[in-house]
Amino acid sequence: MTASFSFRLDATDGAARTGIISTPRGEIRTPAFMPVGTAGTVKAMLPEHVRATGADIVLGNTYHLMLRPGAERVAALGGLHKFMNWPRPILTDSGGFQVMSLSKLRKLTEEGVSFQSHIDGSTHMLTPERSIEIQCLLGADIQMQLDECPAIPIAEEAARKSMLLSIRWAARSKSAFEATAAPGQALFGIVQGANHESLRRESLDRLLEIEFPGYAVGGLAVGEGREEMFRVLEFTCPHMLANKPRYLMGVGKPADIIGAVARGIDMFDCVAPTRSGRHGQAWTKSGPVNIKNAKFADDPEPLDPESDCPASRDYSKAYLHHLFRAGEYLGPMLLTWHNLQYYQHLMHGLRDAVSTGRLDKFIEQFKAATGETVV
Amino acid sequence: MTASFSFRLDATDGAARTGIISTPRGEIRTPAFMPVGTAGTVKAMLPEHVRATGADIVLGNTYHLMLRPGAERVAALGGLHKFMNWPRPILTDSGGFQVMSLSKLRKLTEEGVSFQSHIDGSTHMLTPERSIEIQCLLGADIQMQLDECPAIPIAEEAARKSMLLSIRWAARSKSAFEATAAPGQALFGIVQGANHESLRRESLDRLLEIEFPGYAVGGLAVGEGREEMFRVLEFTCPHMLANKPRYLMGVGKPADIIGAVARGIDMFDCVAPTRSGRHGQAWTKSGPVNIKNAKFADDPEPLDPESDCPASRDYSKAYLHHLFRAGEYLGPMLLTWHNLQYYQHLMHGLRDAVSTGRLDKFIEQFKAATGETVV
Repeated sequence: MTASFSFRLDATDGAARTGIISTPRGEIRTPAFMPVGTAGTVKAMLPEHVRATGADIVLGNTYHLMLRPGAERVAALGGLHKFMNWPRPILTDSGGFQVMSLSKLRKLTEEGVSFQSHIDGSTHMLTPERSIEIQCLLGADIQMQLDECPAIPIAEEAARKSMLLSIRWAARSKSAFEATAAPGQALFGIVQGANHESLRRESLDRLLEIEFPGYAVGGLAVGEGREEMFRVLEFTCPHMLANKPRYLMGVGKPADIIGAVARGIDMFDCVAPTRSGRHGQAWTKSGPVNIKNAKFADDPEPLDPESDCPASRDYSKAYLHHLFRAGEYLGPMLLTWHNLQYYQHLMHGLRDAVSTGRLDKFIEQFKAATGETVV
Repeated sequence: MTASFSFRLDATDGAARTGIISTPRGEIRTPAFMPVGTAGTVKAMLPEHVRATGADIVLGNTYHLMLRPGAERVAALGGLHKFMNWPRPILTDSGGFQVMSLSKLRKLTEEGVSFQSHIDGSTHMLTPERSIEIQCLLGADIQMQLDECPAIPIAEEAARKSMLLSIRWAARSKSAFEATAAPGQALFGIVQGANHESLRRESLDRLLEIEFPGYAVGGLAVGEGREEMFRVLEFTCPHMLANKPRYLMGVGKPADIIGAVARGIDMFDCVAPTRSGRHGQAWTKSGPVNIKNAKFADDPEPLDPESDCPASRDYSKAYLHHLFRAGEYLGPMLLTWHNLQYYQHLMHGLRDAVSTGRLDKFIEQFKAATGETVV
């Protein structure tokens, strides 16, 4: 434990890295996967089980929490960690991405973005300063600057205009953060520029001038496809600081994560394991399966008999199939737990492979076992 | 552990009793509350947490399990205990009550009851023999005879006709059970007769002739009200065998259970703690609360800071309120867990009070703390 935020790089294997992010609330082993706890809960999971899977940090969504229960309320109740009974590190996003994807009547200006809540239609304004204020009220250990995240494809001129707005918001976010944040909290800048190499370089250069303790790659996983995403990482990551953590936002499926780790990314978040778990999809050593498929109705085997996770080990596929057919709570509970265990086991394997210089072999084994393509 | 089924009465306090039911799968401390695991899962609960609340036994519903996933399938998968990962005792009902309350196109004859599934409209026939066959396929430790359970009020002549059918079904159930059941499994007879004293006595006398290792009081909690239910228990329980367990089916709320224990009942089951937990109602030391009520939005206190149950102790009412407002899985998960803990804590208190001859004082304290009426 430390009273300040720091990153220690322990080993590399090609472009891939492994290390430790230290925060006052605990260490984060990288490469790290952050389960998404949108509204103050990793859906269908007890926090002690999230931890038991090996998660060092979870993500909270500023957009959801500002609308319900409200950041000031969470602060009055002692902050998000206490509220959700998760004493370890929390990263919050800026809220910007979900304003644009979920809210109604959005209006983007230099000042920020005004919108109507998707819950009750109430009107709100999210500026770089308000986003930081909310994230500080929540007590997030890692906070994110407000940015604009355009879809791909986007023409270079429009992409540059958007990226420069994000840069101006980055500077305002940092000023607000320095005025408000607690010791040991960290604000990350976000590299934008769509899939245009020159824009990604320009975005990164300008963020490096502002200076952040960590940098995210934003604006990916927005429909561009895995190969294109990897191409962007290939021309972006080599220019990022070696001694700062790199966070690829909103990514991804196992093959996405593996490919991004190979290109130098340290941190990930994605709803895939939790959302798909609620819908009956389980990741296994041999690839994804849909437990609702009739072929599992009589299958006595668990998802992973060798796992130390009760959800993976102690229930047959036939039982899981039955739970989903019957619409029982326990189905999403067990499959979410299993998927989060799978993801953390994957991250453990990646860290171990990078530490010992065997990432290529790890990737080959993953491809052979799952039939997945990792470009 | 024992290879046979037995009941040991340890202490009495007035009409109230405490003891131990021994089965090959473990002991059941009485008075006992059995959480309801309708479709092979106590809804929204992990089985290890059901056990951690202090539950010695859970109930499964023959009607639901015969329709989905099917008794033969459960048997092929190793039985209900293995299927639902609950190694301790399980009691199954006969299916009759839920056929009459849930299925379509029911037709009752001397032979049994034919009906259409509420799930897929398929047609089924439930006889005393088929009910026992299903319960044996599931592997239930305590099985129940098929009976007819008329609503109250019902005229004495109609009630007697129905009661006599249940008696004939009791005899057929016992014959089927003796031909099929495994060593250590037990079949309970069910006293019927609505709220007519002479019929309850006649039903009991005839069941005693057939002989069962335990007897249930059925046909109550069907709308007759708490006082009337207690009146029936008062003229029924004194005539039941002292050395056999007595099970009041489908009961009840805490005040129902306390009053029935005071009248000599040993076993209970009810969906109240689980169903109400899923709908936001929590039992507390000072009575029930609806966590969705706006007054809890800023309440930093947990439901019971002194509890050793994480659900009761580690989350504020404000957080639970938020989870229900946001429609999060974790709300029903935590409130179900809390309510089952409350119920088992109540049963522990009742057993302790009977053991030490302080049941009157226990009841007075319950009434003073909750404002509830226990007749």
